[in-house]
Amino acid sequence: MMKKIRQTWVLENPVYVEAAAIVAGPQEREGPVGSYLDHSFKNLYCGETTWEKAERALMKEAVDRSLKKAGRQTEDIDMFAAGDLLNQTVTSNYTARDYPWPYMGLYSACATSMQSVALLTLLVHSGIIKRGLSAVSSHYGAAERQFRNPVEHVRQKPSTAMKTVTGAGAVILSDSPAEIAVGSVTIGKAVDWDMKDPLDMGQAMAPAAYETFRRHLEDTGRSEKDYDLILTGDLSMFGSRQFLELCEEDGLFITDKYLDGGNTIFGYHPSGCAGGSGAACSALVTYGYVFHKMRSAHWKKVLCIATGALFNPLTVRQKETIPCIAHAVEFIRVEETAGG
Amino acid sequence: MMKKIRQTWVLENPVYVEAAAIVAGPQEREGPVGSYLDHSFKNLYCGETTWEKAERALMKEAVDRSLKKAGRQTEDIDMFAAGDLLNQTVTSNYTARDYPWPYMGLYSACATSMQSVALLTLLVHSGIIKRGLSAVSSHYGAAERQFRNPVEHVRQKPSTAMKTVTGAGAVILSDSPAEIAVGSVTIGKAVDWDMKDPLDMGQAMAPAAYETFRRHLEDTGRSEKDYDLILTGDLSMFGSRQFLELCEEDGLFITDKYLDGGNTIFGYHPSGCAGGSGAACSALVTYGYVFHKMRSAHWKKVLCIATGALFNPLTVRQKETIPCIAHAVEFIRVEETAGG
Repeated sequence: MMKKIRQTWVLENPVYVEAAAIVAGPQEREGPVGSYLDHSFKNLYCGETTWEKAERALMKEAVDRSLKKAGRQTEDIDMFAAGDLLNQTVTSNYTARDYPWPYMGLYSACATSMQSVALLTLLVHSGIIKRGLSAVSSHYGAAERQFRNPVEHVRQKPSTAMKTVTGAGAVILSDSPAEIAVGSVTIGKAVDWDMKDPLDMGQAMAPAAYETFRRHLEDTGRSEKDYDLILTGDLSMFGSRQFLELCEEDGLFITDKYLDGGNTIFGYHPSGCAGGSGAACSALVTYGYVFHKMRSAHWKKVLCIATGALFNPLTVRQKETIPCIAHAVEFIRVEETAGG
Repeated sequence: MMKKIRQTWVLENPVYVEAAAIVAGPQEREGPVGSYLDHSFKNLYCGETTWEKAERALMKEAVDRSLKKAGRQTEDIDMFAAGDLLNQTVTSNYTARDYPWPYMGLYSACATSMQSVALLTLLVHSGIIKRGLSAVSSHYGAAERQFRNPVEHVRQKPSTAMKTVTGAGAVILSDSPAEIAVGSVTIGKAVDWDMKDPLDMGQAMAPAAYETFRRHLEDTGRSEKDYDLILTGDLSMFGSRQFLELCEEDGLFITDKYLDGGNTIFGYHPSGCAGGSGAACSALVTYGYVFHKMRSAHWKKVLCIATGALFNPLTVRQKETIPCIAHAVEFIRVEETAGG
């Protein structure tokens, strides 16, 4: 029997969430996560002339606001880890040039949020860096014309199609005590359950979320009861149902403590789509809504499983199946200790 | 004055290069690096039906051969860190699904080779993983049609244009002693010196190589004399000259110990191009030629500075300048010790 390869690292000393900031476009502001936004732009242009520049404006705004909320200067950050959905991750690259930080460019599609948090957490935990800043972004207009068709085509989409979230999230991780900490991280592997439909990414990604969740529990020796909330990134209505079914077949009943970022971001039944998607989706819901609920002691222990579909439009035209990945981060509310 | 942000990590205990493997296409085999290849394909198809599948065949071949050379099984690898130039790094994603490894998808264009080596080195050094496998790839046909124009257009290119290397390199890093070790790593930051020409990437990337080289020396307190070889990734004839000039303006005279991967891969004056480029370029020259020379004790200490241009075709059409990055890894030949 093959040796099981470790995917989870449980931290001996917590790594803390010093601050997080989220910014978004107008439709996200109207949704239930809207009240947790640090800033929202009135329209998709975000004061710029192209969708691509608009996405950069979102990321830069999130980065700067996270620094301000943490009370940190540029030089307090030791590493920048970022990624986005645009070809060659240009949003992150063009944002990185505005800062003097060693830059770790990452890509795992919509799972990049938790990939970057996991990586910076491990680096802080090891003492390699003292403080790292993670950022992710996505933009409806930029993603739509790159991955699908010009919006002006007014193509009809199937009911399983998701809508790319316009927004960005930034989070600062460090060893300075704060209210929320990272307890453990699980790095996903690429899984492929033979799904081929790029307009049903939720059901393509659900198996990856399930496999990472199961491995997280196996590696930590915990049960689903140890968490107050299990959050998946952007599985949509269809993928969420499939995720819950896969869990139930395995004896994991989590319906009463489960949320999907994509189902949450616009409200449950947004205009003709099965939920939100995009690298910003899990970031907005986690850093906004979930962290707020944790700070107010509603939830103490949350597992955020961000999910990504690792295809591109050419692999779809070449009739390939869609590999997917999910990275999980356990966030814990730090209890006040005597003398603390 | 702003605090200087650390970019270099000098290892207290070395991390070793257990094995490396390189595979390539026919033109690379004809060049001076050809005799160090572990395998070469007779034509660009590499036994597949599309350029994109061919690139995957290259990466998979390099990964499998590196495992075999190290005498390792799949389950001995604790993490896979990979990246490539295709949109959404699909070569790496589709390769990752064939292995049961936690997957860290990376992107820093042609600097991804040393980005992944640097990252895995830090993770091994910290004890987070015991053994990591890095892979990068590029393919002339796949890159040409994605970044430029269909080859069938037979467009003339300026003399500064580079040719994408068809190949892949894989390297296994661990704490098991071997002949070559990593001594230090320098993570680059995104720099932008206002270059706009995507057909002169060498001169766009030269400042990034220079800045990373200078920071490496500053951070380590060393001089250029401490190295037997300074290797840049793929600066081309033009970028190499600019890199040397920038160094000389700074009092760093390295002409007698300097090599550029792009100038080396096809021979100094290949058919109508200024040198090789692509994520595989620095990997092939480093893991093939440089490691061979280190094993035969010709060089003892080499600094490999991989360089990447962080643009995409849309940012060029939108008249943006090209941010670039360079990541450096110091490789050292491990001397035999008494009793060792």
